[in-house]
Amino acid sequence: MRLLHHLPLSPYCRKVRLALAEKHIPFETLVEKVWERRDAFLAMNPACTVPVMVEENGLVIADSNAICEYLDEAYPDPPLMGRTFADRCEVRRLVAWFDLKFGQEVTANLLTERTMKKLLGRGHPEAAALRAGYQNLRSHLDYLGWLAETRPWLAGREISIADLAAAAHLSSLDYIGDVDWSLSDSAKHWYARVKSRPSFRAILADRVPGMAPAEHYADLDF
Amino acid sequence: MRLLHHLPLSPYCRKVRLALAEKHIPFETLVEKVWERRDAFLAMNPACTVPVMVEENGLVIADSNAICEYLDEAYPDPPLMGRTFADRCEVRRLVAWFDLKFGQEVTANLLTERTMKKLLGRGHPEAAALRAGYQNLRSHLDYLGWLAETRPWLAGREISIADLAAAAHLSSLDYIGDVDWSLSDSAKHWYARVKSRPSFRAILADRVPGMAPAEHYADLDF
Repeated sequence: MRLLHHLPLSPYCRKVRLALAEKHIPFETLVEKVWERRDAFLAMNPACTVPVMVEENGLVIADSNAICEYLDEAYPDPPLMGRTFADRCEVRRLVAWFDLKFGQEVTANLLTERTMKKLLGRGHPEAAALRAGYQNLRSHLDYLGWLAETRPWLAGREISIADLAAAAHLSSLDYIGDVDWSLSDSAKHWYARVKSRPSFRAILADRVPGMAPAEHYADLDF
Repeated sequence: MRLLHHLPLSPYCRKVRLALAEKHIPFETLVEKVWERRDAFLAMNPACTVPVMVEENGLVIADSNAICEYLDEAYPDPPLMGRTFADRCEVRRLVAWFDLKFGQEVTANLLTERTMKKLLGRGHPEAAALRAGYQNLRSHLDYLGWLAETRPWLAGREISIADLAAAAHLSSLDYIGDVDWSLSDSAKHWYARVKSRPSFRAILADRVPGMAPAEHYADLDF
């Protein structure tokens, strides 16, 4: 069986889990405590990051973007990277937007600050980082809301990796109770649509030991 | 004519320029001072980053990864993303390695610290950032050297975007004289091979006003 080395709250791993589920590709998961820097894991991915997927034929794929591109090439139905050149450019622009820009401006300031410091016993989150994270989340929700208002899905007519990347980041932040959904109705409605897809069930069932999710986390009607 | 909005020392723009040149796709360039946040540019790319490519048919493509994936789909000859699934995974893993990991650990600490602060009149580079950048460059050159010793090109048998991404970062750092090539003979020999390709000529001809390149910058025999 294909195996995904992952961490439950990593948005990059969640994006891949969602892509696999949307394509109905079966897989098993294994939690990889990257901070332990296991030799066998370093041999698969010297960057020592998750996700890493090991295909049934033994092919090792590191990096969430490499995995998603591979999945769309190897299992093209349904396509999640867009059909036309214009669609594909927009999907990839938005994946970079959420994984890199949102990731740096919001996720790193809130999720990484709160969970990794706690996990590794490195003290309390920095107030300045949290402030910046909340401030940035506000404008990102505005932009996401605008996209959701003007298109059926974030990158166009069909659901794509762009939706999955955005939902992956927001769901991890929602787990720790850091998303104020009252800030954007359109963003909230878009998230409710993604959240109610069968591919999202395993994400909503995630529980991290010692870290209970926000009360509304798994609620489809939040 | 297709147009690339770019900045001469941006490794992400250089990667795209090299990919276009390797594929013999003609293009013009326009320097985009992203810090001026031009309205017309923001309308093309709300992230306000370069590169942005405008295709002859008007298609606007933002984000260097989106552009490179597009180029390989629209102009497949020669392929620069690898031929087999395994090759493609390795190319994309290494592109992420150089653009994200090397970018954050080395380029941001040296190039961004030195050039952007100077450009924007924001004081001197931070000593701690420069120290970290040089330290990280050392281990990155080791890894690059190891790849170059064990394979014809960084990701395998053929030159790929992985080589172009690595060479783009290193060439920008080399412009400001920040690469000590004596640290790795294998890395140096690999760079000499990339540097002598016709696709590299425009990169070596780059001159940034008020910022002369290191003496050996354009030397094929450095």
